[in-house]
Amino acid sequence: MEDPKDNDTSNALTEFKIERFRDGQAFPVDDVVAREEPLEIRLNGRTLVYLMRLPGDDVLLAVGFCNSEGLISERREIDLIQHCVDGDFDSQAPDGAGDGGAGPGNLVEIKAQIKDESERFATARVIRTGCGGADLEHEIDLDKVRVTSEKVFDPQVILKAPDQLLAAQEVFKVSGGTHGAGLFDAEGNMLVVKEDVGRHNAVDKVLGHLLMYGIDPAETGLVLSGRLSYEMVLKAARAGVPLLCSVSAPTALGVEVGRITGVTLVGFLRGAGFNIYSHPRRIGG
Amino acid sequence: MEDPKDNDTSNALTEFKIERFRDGQAFPVDDVVAREEPLEIRLNGRTLVYLMRLPGDDVLLAVGFCNSEGLISERREIDLIQHCVDGDFDSQAPDGAGDGGAGPGNLVEIKAQIKDESERFATARVIRTGCGGADLEHEIDLDKVRVTSEKVFDPQVILKAPDQLLAAQEVFKVSGGTHGAGLFDAEGNMLVVKEDVGRHNAVDKVLGHLLMYGIDPAETGLVLSGRLSYEMVLKAARAGVPLLCSVSAPTALGVEVGRITGVTLVGFLRGAGFNIYSHPRRIGG
Repeated sequence: MEDPKDNDTSNALTEFKIERFRDGQAFPVDDVVAREEPLEIRLNGRTLVYLMRLPGDDVLLAVGFCNSEGLISERREIDLIQHCVDGDFDSQAPDGAGDGGAGPGNLVEIKAQIKDESERFATARVIRTGCGGADLEHEIDLDKVRVTSEKVFDPQVILKAPDQLLAAQEVFKVSGGTHGAGLFDAEGNMLVVKEDVGRHNAVDKVLGHLLMYGIDPAETGLVLSGRLSYEMVLKAARAGVPLLCSVSAPTALGVEVGRITGVTLVGFLRGAGFNIYSHPRRIGG
Repeated sequence: MEDPKDNDTSNALTEFKIERFRDGQAFPVDDVVAREEPLEIRLNGRTLVYLMRLPGDDVLLAVGFCNSEGLISERREIDLIQHCVDGDFDSQAPDGAGDGGAGPGNLVEIKAQIKDESERFATARVIRTGCGGADLEHEIDLDKVRVTSEKVFDPQVILKAPDQLLAAQEVFKVSGGTHGAGLFDAEGNMLVVKEDVGRHNAVDKVLGHLLMYGIDPAETGLVLSGRLSYEMVLKAARAGVPLLCSVSAPTALGVEVGRITGVTLVGFLRGAGFNIYSHPRRIGG
């Protein structure tokens, strides 16, 4: 069998200097994080969607997205695909499907004979906030979001948060099919845990609780079962929560948003250790 | 500490009769699956978003979503929240935040003083397809999607697919931050593997490859690292792929869409066994 992975990973990773907490102390390390960048897909001259995606295979992603949305079902319905690279279009006929060396292009234009029944899709601007999508430049003004809390959290409080979260995930225990989000304070009390089939929703339920019940976000941390993509970090930042922890990995854009907005990001929170991707000053004993 | 989980799980689970494959044979069992249903959030009279969510805490979810989107930052900005239950509105003042016993309501209406800068959100219809959102009734006509392939897959081919997928996930190996999707044939060949920070994108990249390179979907199966929510099943169905496998759990709506569209759904594909949620006729030795 040939290697089924036909694109290299050089455009998919970003290196960061981070801190790793192990055996009771933090030390600096270099870490590699998957990239997350917006891709705009234009169909017949109109913006169809902004997706947050791992760069690479952008033409295939655009075609697959249109297929999944019921807009295109066969290759011959595609008249032209253009992948914008560095501001210029790298025009491709449909048979030139491979775009492994696409570079930093964040726009794919498709001209296609879409089905009549699906015309409505071409007129709707769909923003995939669900899995972390949005037009960053237009939708978000990161300069306006700043978390200034100087609350400090003991590493032992952070280390026990995943077990507290899991213990309260009643739906997960019987179905295995939900993500969880939990809000805790610096004394190690789990204040509220919510579950959902969508990891974004679990966080929104907790943040809705925080807002409706008048909890001071500056005193709290969030622990998640899911990955720290940029939108998860932005949710914490907008709610004013200074510490965001996950058993899983961050994306590069998640790390960058954490650093810009002032959120302390903790990832790979497992067993006796974790990684600190931003603002480590809030973690101390 | 009091139990931080203030809603019960009775509205969050669905029971299914499924088949479990273990030790070389399949046998019928009862299984419990997390529910996934659309929630419409209306803000100041306009549809803001459709979310696919685990029912329960809908008011908190709506408030948290608006907070995360930068539309609401304090409780006093909310004039009224109504949760539609069984066609009637269950009006709530903002201080009646709890909605643990909300029942089957799938609509939350909010009247709020949203920020001027965010008015554009109220005019845009946001469809969260990213994490599995859409207005099912309006956007999807499931009756038109049918997978009729009678391809049969050996359980041993299915059992080895997760390891083949993982072996090809180059970005995951170094970052731990990506989902993977792989397309395989009934002979156990992994035809293509794609990765992405979004599990939906990984699938779309693979299905884009399938379409652009002219692979016959009727002969293939898909294996995913992520959960089988309804949108993942719909992607497979629309592409004509008859077998969808995951190491993780399905949602109840995912199971239902699989049963309606004719996709064989395999979940909890781990070690020497798996669960079969729909159309088990395609699995045989």
